[in-house]
Amino acid sequence: MEKQKLYVIKIGGSLIDNEGKLNEFLEKFASIKAPKILVHGGGKLASNLATKLNISQQMVEGRRVTDKETLDIVTMVYAGKINKNIVAQLQNFDCNAIGFSGADGNLIKSKKRTNSEIDFGFVGDVEKESVNQNLLKELLNLNLVPVFSAITHDKKGNLFNTNADSVASVLAQALSQNFEVELLYCFDKNGILDDINNPDSLIKTLNKIEYLELLSAKKLNEGILPKLKNAFLAVENNVKKVVLINETKLVNQINHQNEGTEIYL
Amino acid sequence: MEKQKLYVIKIGGSLIDNEGKLNEFLEKFASIKAPKILVHGGGKLASNLATKLNISQQMVEGRRVTDKETLDIVTMVYAGKINKNIVAQLQNFDCNAIGFSGADGNLIKSKKRTNSEIDFGFVGDVEKESVNQNLLKELLNLNLVPVFSAITHDKKGNLFNTNADSVASVLAQALSQNFEVELLYCFDKNGILDDINNPDSLIKTLNKIEYLELLSAKKLNEGILPKLKNAFLAVENNVKKVVLINETKLVNQINHQNEGTEIYL
Repeated sequence: MEKQKLYVIKIGGSLIDNEGKLNEFLEKFASIKAPKILVHGGGKLASNLATKLNISQQMVEGRRVTDKETLDIVTMVYAGKINKNIVAQLQNFDCNAIGFSGADGNLIKSKKRTNSEIDFGFVGDVEKESVNQNLLKELLNLNLVPVFSAITHDKKGNLFNTNADSVASVLAQALSQNFEVELLYCFDKNGILDDINNPDSLIKTLNKIEYLELLSAKKLNEGILPKLKNAFLAVENNVKKVVLINETKLVNQINHQNEGTEIYL
Repeated sequence: MEKQKLYVIKIGGSLIDNEGKLNEFLEKFASIKAPKILVHGGGKLASNLATKLNISQQMVEGRRVTDKETLDIVTMVYAGKINKNIVAQLQNFDCNAIGFSGADGNLIKSKKRTNSEIDFGFVGDVEKESVNQNLLKELLNLNLVPVFSAITHDKKGNLFNTNADSVASVLAQALSQNFEVELLYCFDKNGILDDINNPDSLIKTLNKIEYLELLSAKKLNEGILPKLKNAFLAVENNVKKVVLINETKLVNQINHQNEGTEIYL
C-alpha cells in the first residue's frame, strides 16, 4: 500500500520574532491539505525575558547552558507563549492545531546530554526511537495538526531544552515508518548559497560529499550547520525528501517542488 | 447502556505553590484507574513574575484585569511552566498525561467577558457548549489523561484568561453527555464548614437552599464562592456527583466516597 504523504515543517527564530510575517506564514501553512506537523524554535523572546529577569545566560562554545532558571524561562516562552499563540492563530485559520511539548502524551523522550566535557544542564538529546509515533499517528488520524515546541522530557519528571532542528528531524524519521515524509526546514534564506553574499547563487541539490566540500571551503556559516546535520540524518533514516527553503516560499514548494536546496545522501 | 465513570478533578493555587505537596497529590491522581481529567489553577507564580517584570496588576472588585502583558504572563506560567511540569511529573508516575489549553484542538472556546461595566481585558467566559467533547472523548479513548490550564481561546486568534473553577465545571457538564462524571474540587479545607474556625464542623451535604442560608448568615468566605457557583451549575447540568474535598484526601474519596461536602440541587 502506498504511504500517505506527511509534511514535517520547521520554523525558526527570525520568523517567530516577527508577528506579521509569522501570521502570513501560518495562514499558508494552514492551507496545506495533506497531514502536517509544525515544529517551532524559540527566537529572541527567551533571551529577552532572561535579561529582564536578570538571569545571566551562560554560553559555552556558542551554546546555551540551561540551568534550572533558564529551563523555566524556555518552558514558559516556547511551550507557553509561542506554542499557544501559534495554535490560536492556526485555529483562526481553521486548522485544527494542537500544541505539544515532548512530555505531552510521552510524545518525545530525550536523554540528558552527557557526551561532552561541559555540563549543558537541562539539555536533552533525541533520536528517532524517542518518538511515540503510534500515538502521533492516532492524533493525525483525528485530523489534528500537531505543533511542537522543542521542550522534551526524560519520563522521570524532568523537562529538557532540545534543539528544534533535531526535534523536526527525529519526528520525520520516526513517522517515515508509516508516512511518505517531506521534511522542510524553513528559514530566511533561499537555501544553501554557493556565495553567502549572493542570494542568486542557490545550490539546488546538495549531497554529503558536496556538503563536506562547502564545509572545508568555509562557505557555510555556523548557524546552518545544525540544520544540515539534522537534514542529512533525516535522509539517512528513510525520510523521503528533505529541503531547506525560504519561509516565504512554502506554498510554491508544496505546489511545485521547485524551491530551496534539496538534501541527498 | 451504562455510562463509563469519569473523574474531572480541579486543583488550585495553594497546592500548585507547594512542589512537595503537589507531587504527593499527582502520585495519588496517577493511581486512579478510571478515565480522568485534571484542571489546574495558577497560584502565586504569575503574580510573582509580574512583580519581577514591573508589570502592575490592576484589580477591580477583587478580580484581576488581564491586559496584553498580563495575558502573556499567565499564558507562559499556566500553559507553559505549570502545565508542562505537571504533565512531566504525571508521566514519571506512569500516567499518560497530555497538557492542553483551550486553544489546543479547539477544546474550549470562550467569549470575551462583556457583561460588566468594567473591561476585564483578555478574560473569557465559558459554557458547556464551549467544550469540544467529541474530540475529548476520542482522546480519552486513547487512554490519554488531559491536563488543562485555564487558558482558552475565541477561535479568532485570541487567548483568554479563564476561571479554572468554571473550566472544570463546563468540562464536567459537557462530558456528562457520554460519561457518568464525578467533579471533585480539591482545596486545602475539608469541605464547607459551618464554622470556618472549626475544621470539625464539616457540612457533609449542601443543597441550594442551605447554601443561600449560609450565604446570608455570612458563613462563607469570598474565595469559596466561585467554586460553589460552578459546583451548583454542574449539578444543574447533569453532572452525576459534585464534591468539594481536601486535596490530601483524594484517594479516600475515590475509594470510599466519604470525604468533603457533596453538592445537591
